Amino acid sequence: MKICCSRQELIKSVNIALRAVPVRTTMPILECILIDARQGDIHFISNDMELGIDTVVNGVTEEPGTIAVNAKMFSEIVRKLPDNMVTIISDENFNVTILCEKTRFALAGQSGEEFAYLPEVERDERIEISQYTLREIISDTIFSISQNENNRLMTGELFEIGGDRLRVISLDGHRISIRRITLKEFYSDAKVVVPGKTLSEIMKIMTGETDDMAGIYITPGHIVFEIPGTTVISRLIEGTYFAVDQMISSDYETKVVVNRQILLSCIDRATLFVKENDKKPVILDFQEKDLKLSIDSPLGSMKEDIYIDKEGRDLMIGFNPRFLMDALKAIDEENVTLYMTNAKSPCFIRDEALSYTYLILPVNFTR
Amino acid sequence: MKICCSRQELIKSVNIALRAVPVRTTMPILECILIDARQGDIHFISNDMELGIDTVVNGVTEEPGTIAVNAKMFSEIVRKLPDNMVTIISDENFNVTILCEKTRFALAGQSGEEFAYLPEVERDERIEISQYTLREIISDTIFSISQNENNRLMTGELFEIGGDRLRVISLDGHRISIRRITLKEFYSDAKVVVPGKTLSEIMKIMTGETDDMAGIYITPGHIVFEIPGTTVISRLIEGTYFAVDQMISSDYETKVVVNRQILLSCIDRATLFVKENDKKPVILDFQEKDLKLSIDSPLGSMKEDIYIDKEGRDLMIGFNPRFLMDALKAIDEENVTLYMTNAKSPCFIRDEALSYTYLILPVNFTR
Repeated sequence: MKICCSRQELIKSVNIALRAVPVRTTMPILECILIDARQGDIHFISNDMELGIDTVVNGVTEEPGTIAVNAKMFSEIVRKLPDNMVTIISDENFNVTILCEKTRFALAGQSGEEFAYLPEVERDERIEISQYTLREIISDTIFSISQNENNRLMTGELFEIGGDRLRVISLDGHRISIRRITLKEFYSDAKVVVPGKTLSEIMKIMTGETDDMAGIYITPGHIVFEIPGTTVISRLIEGTYFAVDQMISSDYETKVVVNRQILLSCIDRATLFVKENDKKPVILDFQEKDLKLSIDSPLGSMKEDIYIDKEGRDLMIGFNPRFLMDALKAIDEENVTLYMTNAKSPCFIRDEALSYTYLILPVNFTR
Repeated sequence: MKICCSRQELIKSVNIALRAVPVRTTMPILECILIDARQGDIHFISNDMELGIDTVVNGVTEEPGTIAVNAKMFSEIVRKLPDNMVTIISDENFNVTILCEKTRFALAGQSGEEFAYLPEVERDERIEISQYTLREIISDTIFSISQNENNRLMTGELFEIGGDRLRVISLDGHRISIRRITLKEFYSDAKVVVPGKTLSEIMKIMTGETDDMAGIYITPGHIVFEIPGTTVISRLIEGTYFAVDQMISSDYETKVVVNRQILLSCIDRATLFVKENDKKPVILDFQEKDLKLSIDSPLGSMKEDIYIDKEGRDLMIGFNPRFLMDALKAIDEENVTLYMTNAKSPCFIRDEALSYTYLILPVNFTR
């Protein structure tokens, strides 16, 4: 095999392919990027057996062929090369030579035959969505997936398509995050759970521009994301997702409108006294025109008054400050509305159109 | 005690004082910053028993007094406050209240009586130097102090004053770094070894502007650095420093002029194959108009040709690539000159005026 590409193109494509290279694995071949130049085009392919990426590299194939190279080493070499055209050559013994200006790197590759190629997946209906929107709805919900593998379904996000509506839902047992958008067309109904790892890698690959489109294909076992030049194939998490709609209520006794940034900064200050894994709640005391926010800990205490617009009953309620902050950070509006019933029932933060809904369970506290 | 300062001033002064707060200590009082407002001025004082800092805070003392507050907690609170005026109050039970807008923090302080105040040091002769120059000469040499405490003298840098000359020297057994500057006046001769920790903190406190001056006072046991608003007092390392001048020779068999940046990038690429603590040398083969630089390792190999201007014999010599890179990074010139004798003798990188001298011992290698 002999290919020739610019260093810039190599860096761009290696960065994409690296997203599906596992950090730790018992199969050394999975630590490789496959350079596949059998058909004229140059592809970089990576696969951690759950997530697979195939990205096209702009360049010239002088001799077709394939070679697998250690991804980390290859990426470091490419990064440190002079900024010029790079030639990559492999011979029948899988020796790889990388040439750029007067620099010559030699390293051992592995046969492309040993590589775990991506599964062939049938692509019927293409769901069209802008990369910007896809990235937003993932980043606005992914913080509330569970990091704990005990319940696999909680480590992913529900993608639910009904007509021209897409809902993305995550939950971790303490809170639920929901984003809802309207698609440009109507599609077949579908409900699949996509691994959180896949979604966080997809976010990093996408440009985030409104004009750049992405395509989504859903099959019984896989989801495919098509971004110009790059295809990402991921296994789905099997099982029936939680009946989230039953957990959501529109009743409330107290409705509060508050400036999002002021509330966020105030909770951020309060968390100074909260150590990691410490369950110290922040206490929100909603009175007539005032929210009195306070936290007490052996290290010290903090109190602050915030102006609010309130309807309904006064209420004192405690929360894990991080859960409130995560939701407030995900919302992109000046003011937010909190709906609460009592100190034992969940708080809902949502807009009128239900484009976002954040449910947060309160915590017990003693005064 | 009651003082009032802007948050910006507090942040600036806390950042300076934090530099002498030890990360780990058996004496909790050392983890504190002392707020000293007994005399009208507000001082933040910190002391890790080797290094002490006293910095003046712009603000108003409403009630004189002192209080010691946990440095880390205090710094985090100040950082998270709204950007406005801050009032700090302490009572007779050492309770500290920090007020800013509608935020009120409460935490427990400690008596100022328990604090280890800075030693009184006699300040006779003030050596005047620009902060820019002081920072440069430290940063251009500090990388070759030893991290190993076995030989205390190697963990510091020699400050040697003779007439209007200041030399700063560091060495770690494999290399020596020397910077020499001319001062504006003549001063008494002095030779003291300043702890590396002190110097790296001093670098971070200084502005690095040419017009901002610093004063240095040397006493038998201490060195004092005076920067406007801040005084840093450090113990010196006791003992007689190495006879560095005996290790330096001006004889050579091979003299090479090479572009600094090209050589640096090339060695940087070669280090891809060098893992931490791996003693793999980079081999420099100086031929007529060419330096052939190469490295071999079980992971792969790299070769590169670099154009040089050479006088004297051809030579093949091996080096720890990091030592070469450290010296090349510290030099601020387009071309550097290397002086070598043979593959067993040190290489010198120096300018004509001897404003810098870097000695690097070669490493054995097998071909």
